[in-house]
Amino acid sequence: MKFVSYVNSNGFPAPGLLEGESIRRIDAPSLRDYIALPPAQRAAQHTSETIALAKVKLDAPVRPLRNIFCVGRNYLEHAKEGAAIFGQELKLPDVPTFFTKATPTSIAAHEQTLKLEAKVSSEYDFEAELAVIIGTTCKDVTEADAMRVIFGYTAFNDVTARDLQRAHLQWFKGKSLDYCSPYGPWIVSADEIGDPGKLEIMFHLNGVEKQHSNTSKMIFDIPRLIAELSKGMTLLAGDVIATGTPEGVGFARKPPEFLKDGDVMEVKIEKIGVLRNTVSIA
Amino acid sequence: MKFVSYVNSNGFPAPGLLEGESIRRIDAPSLRDYIALPPAQRAAQHTSETIALAKVKLDAPVRPLRNIFCVGRNYLEHAKEGAAIFGQELKLPDVPTFFTKATPTSIAAHEQTLKLEAKVSSEYDFEAELAVIIGTTCKDVTEADAMRVIFGYTAFNDVTARDLQRAHLQWFKGKSLDYCSPYGPWIVSADEIGDPGKLEIMFHLNGVEKQHSNTSKMIFDIPRLIAELSKGMTLLAGDVIATGTPEGVGFARKPPEFLKDGDVMEVKIEKIGVLRNTVSIA
Repeated sequence: MKFVSYVNSNGFPAPGLLEGESIRRIDAPSLRDYIALPPAQRAAQHTSETIALAKVKLDAPVRPLRNIFCVGRNYLEHAKEGAAIFGQELKLPDVPTFFTKATPTSIAAHEQTLKLEAKVSSEYDFEAELAVIIGTTCKDVTEADAMRVIFGYTAFNDVTARDLQRAHLQWFKGKSLDYCSPYGPWIVSADEIGDPGKLEIMFHLNGVEKQHSNTSKMIFDIPRLIAELSKGMTLLAGDVIATGTPEGVGFARKPPEFLKDGDVMEVKIEKIGVLRNTVSIA
Repeated sequence: MKFVSYVNSNGFPAPGLLEGESIRRIDAPSLRDYIALPPAQRAAQHTSETIALAKVKLDAPVRPLRNIFCVGRNYLEHAKEGAAIFGQELKLPDVPTFFTKATPTSIAAHEQTLKLEAKVSSEYDFEAELAVIIGTTCKDVTEADAMRVIFGYTAFNDVTARDLQRAHLQWFKGKSLDYCSPYGPWIVSADEIGDPGKLEIMFHLNGVEKQHSNTSKMIFDIPRLIAELSKGMTLLAGDVIATGTPEGVGFARKPPEFLKDGDVMEVKIEKIGVLRNTVSIA
């Protein structure tokens, strides 16, 4: 199944089930509230009201209660390209590198224009990522149990101000500018994805392929990420975990390629689809 | 004025105004909703209903919509003690080092027992900090305007798992375990504090002073922190910004002193009061 949040006739986002080109309304205050229901109670919220996908605007599919969780340097070739640019020896940690992106202010929807400020950064960059949506409250989850706490997956673009990421030492500020967390267009349920560790993942800039990898190349796979993140820290239904980007990002290209006003970005992930956003830099 | 969130007779936290030993109920869904009102509309929400402070439990005074913002190494002597422990040369950045702590799961109230897991970390540590509460939506705030966006201040203990902070490279995970963000007991309004840059700040462990400094010693003062944090990133009413800790934390002491089961921690800040929490490690 595919889940969306769409802007309904009263202007508020509402949750829905995408069936072909049609959206079936879900009777819940938000998709996060729906996800938080016991799985056996979810189907009872699916109404018989439908609306054409073409007639609505999509919102980000789920809005978490707190910042988006992210993983840094989770593909070896991306870790290598980053270290090479700064002439550093590559030393990978034994555990994942977690950081966050501020919500709700950085959240953007599929097809939403990202309004970036030229005076704040001159090095806006893209990062195609697979994101996991957590389906239930959980803590100290084992790797063996991790797949059971996943509701579904979406495409994520971890838009980053590289100059700020470096200047502030910790990555948070350079990752958290307004509009810098587009994700969507929808959440594909965990059962429909099957194994999230064998999905093709691509990034296209103005139609040209810049990143192309496979989630099988993650250094820490999704069960391991959930096990590490949930150690001593409760995860919540609707939490979003962006699982890291492969090689090919702009700052590591020769010469570097930073985003320009009018650029069209597309994150493409097998079994999910295309997340598209245009950049406005003023 | 002093603002609290207290647990009322139906078990939900409610906002209130602390007047001596009595709490006046504020008619708003939460203190965050009250803070988000235009300042001229706030007083109309103060009811005539009162309850004795001694009869209620306090919650954390405000629950932000997203993670708590934090500043690392914002007192020179603390930055020095940290570098010395690892035999590193101290290189301070030109801009503040921002990171976040996960909410709502890490939030704890004054007098709440912090339930920490021995299997997750063997290096729990304390950090006394002054926290700023943002009073209005704002972005790209100048230093000259920064004081106008502040609602008030509270005492904050940035409880940290030092082993996780190091192992995960980015600080987020070691800062975000459940119960590791106690703050309160109340918010003191900005007008009552006056200049937040000249407050005595202390930390007592089981009654013994471990930290004692003054907020005048911050490397980046509060107007500068707000200006930097809000560049390209919208701040929201009810946001919590912990402004960094002075020297004297456990891991930098010789020998290191990590928290033990039963320890009583007190953050004391001039014009605010005492935030007290007992640690349970099991």
